[in-house]
Amino acid sequence: MDYQNILNEIHAEVQPIIGSAPPADYIPELANVDNKKFGISLTTISGEEYGVGDTEVKFSIQSISKVITLAKVFYSLGDQIWERVGVEPSGTTFNSLTQLEFEKGIPRNPFLNSGALVITDMLISIFDKPKEEILRIMRSISGNNEIIPNLKVAESEIGHSERNKALAYMMKSFGNIHNDIDHLLEVYAYQCAIEMTCKELSKAFLLFANNGFCRFSNKRELTVSQTKRLNAIMQSCGFYDEAGEFAFKVGLPGKSGVGGGIVAVLPGQFSISVWNPGLNKKGNSLVGMKALELFTTKSGISIF
Amino acid sequence: MDYQNILNEIHAEVQPIIGSAPPADYIPELANVDNKKFGISLTTISGEEYGVGDTEVKFSIQSISKVITLAKVFYSLGDQIWERVGVEPSGTTFNSLTQLEFEKGIPRNPFLNSGALVITDMLISIFDKPKEEILRIMRSISGNNEIIPNLKVAESEIGHSERNKALAYMMKSFGNIHNDIDHLLEVYAYQCAIEMTCKELSKAFLLFANNGFCRFSNKRELTVSQTKRLNAIMQSCGFYDEAGEFAFKVGLPGKSGVGGGIVAVLPGQFSISVWNPGLNKKGNSLVGMKALELFTTKSGISIF
Amino acid sequence: MDYQNILNEIHAEVQPIIGSAPPADYIPELANVDNKKFGISLTTISGEEYGVGDTEVKFSIQSISKVITLAKVFYSLGDQIWERVGVEPSGTTFNSLTQLEFEKGIPRNPFLNSGALVITDMLISIFDKPKEEILRIMRSISGNNEIIPNLKVAESEIGHSERNKALAYMMKSFGNIHNDIDHLLEVYAYQCAIEMTCKELSKAFLLFANNGFCRFSNKRELTVSQTKRLNAIMQSCGFYDEAGEFAFKVGLPGKSGVGGGIVAVLPGQFSISVWNPGLNKKGNSLVGMKALELFTTKSGISIF
Amino acid sequence: MDYQNILNEIHAEVQPIIGSAPPADYIPELANVDNKKFGISLTTISGEEYGVGDTEVKFSIQSISKVITLAKVFYSLGDQIWERVGVEPSGTTFNSLTQLEFEKGIPRNPFLNSGALVITDMLISIFDKPKEEILRIMRSISGNNEIIPNLKVAESEIGHSERNKALAYMMKSFGNIHNDIDHLLEVYAYQCAIEMTCKELSKAFLLFANNGFCRFSNKRELTVSQTKRLNAIMQSCGFYDEAGEFAFKVGLPGKSGVGGGIVAVLPGQFSISVWNPGLNKKGNSLVGMKALELFTTKSGISIF
Repeated sequence: MDYQNILNEIHAEVQPIIGSAPPADYIPELANVDNKKFGISLTTISGEEYGVGDTEVKFSIQSISKVITLAKVFYSLGDQIWERVGVEPSGTTFNSLTQLEFEKGIPRNPFLNSGALVITDMLISIFDKPKEEILRIMRSISGNNEIIPNLKVAESEIGHSERNKALAYMMKSFGNIHNDIDHLLEVYAYQCAIEMTCKELSKAFLLFANNGFCRFSNKRELTVSQTKRLNAIMQSCGFYDEAGEFAFKVGLPGKSGVGGGIVAVLPGQFSISVWNPGLNKKGNSLVGMKALELFTTKSGISIF
Repeated sequence: MDYQNILNEIHAEVQPIIGSAPPADYIPELANVDNKKFGISLTTISGEEYGVGDTEVKFSIQSISKVITLAKVFYSLGDQIWERVGVEPSGTTFNSLTQLEFEKGIPRNPFLNSGALVITDMLISIFDKPKEEILRIMRSISGNNEIIPNLKVAESEIGHSERNKALAYMMKSFGNIHNDIDHLLEVYAYQCAIEMTCKELSKAFLLFANNGFCRFSNKRELTVSQTKRLNAIMQSCGFYDEAGEFAFKVGLPGKSGVGGGIVAVLPGQFSISVWNPGLNKKGNSLVGMKALELFTTKSGISIF
Repeated sequence: MDYQNILNEIHAEVQPIIGSAPPADYIPELANVDNKKFGISLTTISGEEYGVGDTEVKFSIQSISKVITLAKVFYSLGDQIWERVGVEPSGTTFNSLTQLEFEKGIPRNPFLNSGALVITDMLISIFDKPKEEILRIMRSISGNNEIIPNLKVAESEIGHSERNKALAYMMKSFGNIHNDIDHLLEVYAYQCAIEMTCKELSKAFLLFANNGFCRFSNKRELTVSQTKRLNAIMQSCGFYDEAGEFAFKVGLPGKSGVGGGIVAVLPGQFSISVWNPGLNKKGNSLVGMKALELFTTKSGISIF
Repeated sequence: MDYQNILNEIHAEVQPIIGSAPPADYIPELANVDNKKFGISLTTISGEEYGVGDTEVKFSIQSISKVITLAKVFYSLGDQIWERVGVEPSGTTFNSLTQLEFEKGIPRNPFLNSGALVITDMLISIFDKPKEEILRIMRSISGNNEIIPNLKVAESEIGHSERNKALAYMMKSFGNIHNDIDHLLEVYAYQCAIEMTCKELSKAFLLFANNGFCRFSNKRELTVSQTKRLNAIMQSCGFYDEAGEFAFKVGLPGKSGVGGGIVAVLPGQFSISVWNPGLNKKGNSLVGMKALELFTTKSGISIF
């Protein structure tokens, strides 16, 4: 398939809607990002790379980091992690406390903020230096040792973390957070503040298209079975209360971040990332969603 | 792949749990079904058929019928149907009124009872003789003109339809039901009471594995794009509040029914159906879920 | 206390807000009522009557009828009625299904539509001719044999009763409705469509200020203890999700109706009724709420 | 009325149920209280005192303190406080986050933990030394300068305050908490840990029966109108999701605490306090509720 040509067509077709949606506004570092930027990158499991637009501009990966910490913790601890977090879509927004209260502090899935906090809490319990470990895995799977967080973003997030603290204290009241909450929030802000380019992000997610084996670290990061399961969770829960819509229109497992990035995979074939900071009302990149919908339409490719 | 051998192995391995769960008990016709019966059938798009166990015993397809009426209405009306029903997983049980109230009478998805009632309401608006049309399509896609509903089941369902009537009147209060509610409930009970064997069910669902073209009716029943979308909805919403679990463990789009049937498809390859009447706490066939999980494990096959 | 003077002052002071709020609009018979009408009447247990404005104009008592049917059923059946309906405020709107679902078909209190339907269902079970019985009690306690329902209103209500049917079927699915639902809705519409004047309404409610003994029927309609309890329920639950606000600002047990009437009692002293059809956002008479707040302020009278 | 005789009768009649319910168990200081203790005290506005049982044993007043801080803040700031907290019953338990989320961080009423935290947050904003001020007012209105908190209880509460922290951070995320949360929780734990005897408690609440004027401080603590309103809030919201039940059975404005104390007032007449540490499933003193129900039955006294 002529991926480059498809990406070029998408690039042309999304031009009219670029800039039409505002970026996240809860911290200045995200609010001030140029919402005219757009990039799309695709990496195949045989190593081919395609891309167009601002594919080498860094952006905040935010919630996309949740997939990577989940992979790390899942490979480390195995199925016992599912005692502390579920795999069901939530039907609600990413930071809802309501469901968490009804379900006794067990988050519905690891891509809700509550669930990601539980995963990061596990990561802190495993590793003495959790931040270093997060950085190490990010660099390793994307084959780029220069990857770093934007510490200003991390700091701002911490200054606006009341809702996440409410989630964390709620879960602690049910015994589902084990570490100090201020430390947890700090590590969590650190992982969300990691910056990558579209190119790096599609590389980093290639392992999910490649049965858990990473071309760049040259080692297994997940078992074959775990990879399938993690892809299934991305499919079911990767887009908050727009997960069904994404499955319906795009048909690939993926994950979005409030920085405007989206990454998706076709198991056995490729990973694809797209970035534009303007967000729709559900908190997902407006142009990114459209670009991936166009990709599916033009290529005829989906898991369905 | 040696499908027959895999099915045989599954048949052997599920024996210990057959009979351990009770069938649906809300009407005597379902409560009295023999929960020792078990069948599993697989049909490939090239026409091969595999199976083991009670693959030629009729059972009530119940909610599995929702996929077929949805396909019929979707192909007839196109995307306008999504103004009256969503595509998001619900995170709640199949007959909840709560979400329906918050969302102004628009069901989350067409596989909730509320959503299926809206789809059947559309079908009634399109066809003068909706029951005949339902029977016609069921027979046509499974290549079997003998398929009929169990009218005793239909009658019993009508006698126990208070909850569905509540859903229907609630939606009518928001303007989202257009036809007479007693008639709607009667047609709905009729479609749920259709009986098929595992063999027939896997044939009937082959069109979803075959891009919308049916080998048996020898015609297109859905466009290619609609087929992908319908598969995506099965993936996201086919198992009530166990949809994520099914995606996680099985990794195939599918649909369950309270009669104990489950059907799933691997797009481009095959459809597979399994039946045992014993239900788990979420209302899905306990043995059926296990059998499909074993199928994925043994074959290594999933969309992920 | 110079009640007449206080009522005159209130009449003068509410003039500027009369006509500022629209009447109920869900049926034409209520929507077309003149929202410039205003009346206020007070009757003491010693038989004095005070009033000003349109105190002899008939209006639809609507939900105020729920108190009278509750009194009738409570006196007939005693405390067993509390097995089928609670006495707690709901915290939600008058026709919510959500809470009803969580609480297995047991309405929070008898002044929610769901709870009132249960009470009317009991009344139907007790009396062979429930409509006649409702008319008889209404006439008896207000000392006026001319009281009748507006049958056009009743008919219109039945034509707009989808939501109430949803509530009724929901409760029936939990076994908490015993009679035919169409009949139940008809009797319920009949009781809501009763018309009274302010004068008649304050007379009818005098029994609640008089320990359950009615001056007009000249007999006991409730025991002393039941009267206190019914007043307590009016206090806790008489104004939907504005019950706390009414207690806070007015401080008398009372009940509102969507026809714009409100009635309240000071136990041991008097009953007071007020009417203006314009409704606030909570569905209570805007001017009526203000008039009673002024009454409390001017008279210094409240149960607190 | 022969209050002493009534109290004696109650004392005798509740003996069989004393000790049948367990005390609060979330901190050892409450769990280890002797649940055989029982006291009941009544103070009239003319200064008479009645009592029987353990009326001079100290216990933790816990949530009863919420009424006193509310009175202090209400008298200081006036009606502006109602912009940050409502007056409606919640229909849910005392520490629910669900409703708080739906209602954008504005607690339903000041007797929920969330609402009480907002009131204490206001108190911290007003007074430089909030703890001293709390102690001063408690001592002043009960006419006893020896009143102190149990600092072990306060410390234990802080160590078990995850749920309250979750509430506080949630409200802060909506801008409805202004002070440091650790400090807020500390002051809140301090007020809840105040210890009083039944005798002291009935004296402290006499001001609510006396139109806001306190016999012991010899000054006005609330305006007449504010007193009525505060009594109305106690009536509507004083017993969590048992407020309707208390109104129904007891018919007096009151407030309970998890330490097993309950206090109630008859406006214009008296205040009455009762204590036994055993709690019913709603978190209110089982014996205390029964004792006050007996009081109403025997005396025929209620606001209704």
